[in-house]
Amino acid sequence: MGAGSEGALSTRVLGGDPRAVARAISLIEDGAPEGARLVRELFGHTGGAWLVGVTGPPGAGKSSLVDRLIARFRSTGRRVGVIAVDPTSPFSGGAVLGDRVRMQTHAGDDGVFIRSMATRGQFGGLASATHEAALVLDAAGYDPVIIETVGVGQDEVEIARTADAAVVVVAPGFGDDVQAIKAGVLEIADVFVVNKADHDGADRAVTQLETMLGLAEPPRGEWRPPVVLTQATSGEGVEELAVALERFRDRPDDLRLERRRQREANALRRLVGELCWRQVEERIGLSEIGAISAQLARRELDPYGAAESLLARTRPAQP
Amino acid sequence: MGAGSEGALSTRVLGGDPRAVARAISLIEDGAPEGARLVRELFGHTGGAWLVGVTGPPGAGKSSLVDRLIARFRSTGRRVGVIAVDPTSPFSGGAVLGDRVRMQTHAGDDGVFIRSMATRGQFGGLASATHEAALVLDAAGYDPVIIETVGVGQDEVEIARTADAAVVVVAPGFGDDVQAIKAGVLEIADVFVVNKADHDGADRAVTQLETMLGLAEPPRGEWRPPVVLTQATSGEGVEELAVALERFRDRPDDLRLERRRQREANALRRLVGELCWRQVEERIGLSEIGAISAQLARRELDPYGAAESLLARTRPAQP
Repeated sequence: MGAGSEGALSTRVLGGDPRAVARAISLIEDGAPEGARLVRELFGHTGGAWLVGVTGPPGAGKSSLVDRLIARFRSTGRRVGVIAVDPTSPFSGGAVLGDRVRMQTHAGDDGVFIRSMATRGQFGGLASATHEAALVLDAAGYDPVIIETVGVGQDEVEIARTADAAVVVVAPGFGDDVQAIKAGVLEIADVFVVNKADHDGADRAVTQLETMLGLAEPPRGEWRPPVVLTQATSGEGVEELAVALERFRDRPDDLRLERRRQREANALRRLVGELCWRQVEERIGLSEIGAISAQLARRELDPYGAAESLLARTRPAQP
Repeated sequence: MGAGSEGALSTRVLGGDPRAVARAISLIEDGAPEGARLVRELFGHTGGAWLVGVTGPPGAGKSSLVDRLIARFRSTGRRVGVIAVDPTSPFSGGAVLGDRVRMQTHAGDDGVFIRSMATRGQFGGLASATHEAALVLDAAGYDPVIIETVGVGQDEVEIARTADAAVVVVAPGFGDDVQAIKAGVLEIADVFVVNKADHDGADRAVTQLETMLGLAEPPRGEWRPPVVLTQATSGEGVEELAVALERFRDRPDDLRLERRRQREANALRRLVGELCWRQVEERIGLSEIGAISAQLARRELDPYGAAESLLARTRPAQP
């Protein structure tokens, strides 16, 4: 695949061609160098889309809620992109199937692009890959781009940080109630949703969340995350959620830019670490890295010394 | 804090002094340079302890189960260390309190050391910090060291990879049943536990897990993870769990060493990325990195170009 055809691919992405978008995301997901080149080419054409992260524990009803949000945004004439970060694996046929079924409901609508991205245990690479896939959709003119993740862990926190707005969805009585949500996830939420409003304990979950938020110091940018009660199956509360999101989007420019600056700072840090490791791999070679790891396992080397030596051999420190 | 007193600290850790251990872990948790130096000093004295990771979704009863395991291992005369990775934050007083209450039950037993480590949203640093804290306990003579995490995400996968054996605990009927567990977590489990054996659906959860495991390709090292049914509140099944773990521990040496080699390779990769970023920060300075991030947010730079330039300015590539 030469540079010429990559150039053509970016042009096709910018023209909004769904097959080019799909191919571009595959390149990124595979960690192919062509993917990195493509991101470079597209980056200057991004920033127009509004990135909305939706996360929460499994079973909270996120997928149905995202379906409702897609319909809501479509009704205003927008083309909507969705990245569904999906716990795919040999084991979890169920999750993949669920997602495929869901895609069918929008299959006839070329104003909606839904793409699953797999959790591959890639080393810190998932947040990068998700971020870059969102950039591709952004460049292709999808706006908003919804990034849906399942879970309440550090990876979701990092992915949510790549969005302009983060929605955390819980269901009443889930696990240990709101304690089931890791603190880091609470902190990144711009809007909370208690879904399954018809279930027992929904009002209690809202009160709990509001109490926790009330105890916390004033959130960044003077925005106090609202708690919205929804019932995705009936659509109840979805308009309220969309309005809350739009209210968040329409904050002063400097707040939105600062959020994006933070996002780029995080992405930069990830990227520097990844590029640096790639250089170490290229310079040292996988077999010697394997031998060094074995020496570490036998305690014949110490890890800091080994890491410093790998760095020094790859790139000598400046005087 | 001079090198001399750090030297004294490592000596005290090696002597098994709990206060020195606590201080050492704090240094690591804070990301202090003294922490890194300490790990270097201790590393050669580690590798003796058996590291057992215990993870699973909130509400599965992990803490009670870990309590039972502590008692079981104590009964064989071993000193037991526990790192509880804890979703601490201004918001989550509950979780911290729960953990403190739990520590009280072992407060009178100086053969047990329990330490909470907070999820701080540190950038990829949690798995490193947890791994290094486990090394400190290892150096101090605690064996086994149990690393308990709450959740089913990528961070738990990475932390579990730092252990010699990974236990994944679920409760019957939790969320979407076993689909609530991310695939990556299934893949890292060496032993599964279905806790709350007295609850409805426990047998069904066991069958589901066994079916999923049966469908998968033969697991690494010819080990097929067993599914153990426990009831932590009564202690039922805990002996069976301990025996399953010990059976896993007693596999041939080459399998155990290969696991440790993998762990060191992962740790090395993390460490190289972290050291590299730290060098970039030192060389370039936070204010210029902030300015570059703002340029990225305004799309005046592209991220790969920016990362490559930062790397090149920090360490010129070798010819």
